[in-house]
Amino acid sequence: MQRVTNCIYLQDGKVLLLKKPRRGWWAIPGGKMEPTETVKASVIREYREETGLNIEDPVLKGVYTFLVKKDDEIISEWMMFNFFCDQASGSQMTITEEGILEWHPIEEINNLPMAKGDYSIIKHAIYGKEVSFGTFIYDEENELLSMLVDS
Amino acid sequence: MQRVTNCIYLQDGKVLLLKKPRRGWWAIPGGKMEPTETVKASVIREYREETGLNIEDPVLKGVYTFLVKKDDEIISEWMMFNFFCDQASGSQMTITEEGILEWHPIEEINNLPMAKGDYSIIKHAIYGKEVSFGTFIYDEENELLSMLVDS
Repeated sequence: MQRVTNCIYLQDGKVLLLKKPRRGWWAIPGGKMEPTETVKASVIREYREETGLNIEDPVLKGVYTFLVKKDDEIISEWMMFNFFCDQASGSQMTITEEGILEWHPIEEINNLPMAKGDYSIIKHAIYGKEVSFGTFIYDEENELLSMLVDS
Repeated sequence: MQRVTNCIYLQDGKVLLLKKPRRGWWAIPGGKMEPTETVKASVIREYREETGLNIEDPVLKGVYTFLVKKDDEIISEWMMFNFFCDQASGSQMTITEEGILEWHPIEEINNLPMAKGDYSIIKHAIYGKEVSFGTFIYDEENELLSMLVDS
């Protein structure tokens, strides 16, 4: 199963997000885990590769399963480990191979096009105190079919 | 990838552990996640099925990857989500299909036969404040080849 780690980096009320070229949807910077690295080592490495920034003391905020269903059958299954941090160092990139990086005020995030479940994930990363656990089921067109979150 | 959830339930300085019949090694009660349930729902369900007890407010303490290597090749890969709790209700079983359930004082756990990495996992669940992240590499005979833990 694919495992993805990513991080909400909050600074002065703004979050750094990545606009992916394919659909123009915004995503949380991060990427795929290597088999032998820890979840925490992965998010630090991936964030640096995608943004140029070294996040400091990332805190785990969410453990989520993503299922893609076609005709009631699960055709894809992956996990997201979502972190939060408010300290980072390094020189931030703005255009990368993955897309465009931009800062967005918290209150404008709900207006950005993105996978529906990500609104909840970002909100919890910023405001949630505990680790949240969830399952998001999408169809092949990236439409959210159901969402189950407990924390 | 197989995902396992389990829980260290501590009461009066003792931990409830499961002796599995095959090797006589002790293990942390828990079991395999269902695809659509959340990690937290899974640990509550699995702990109840394995012990008869309803754990209350389990707290995530560790996210671990387990790799089994043969001749430098990864032949098996799974994840463990390890929780801690000190409150539970219900009627505890002592002999189940999975093995024998027994309470062990914290200070005697290091003398019990179990997978080597589990000593660290149990210790962190009891004493660690933050979520720990790790990778454990075993060979086919369940000998620990390497262990990498950050928290």
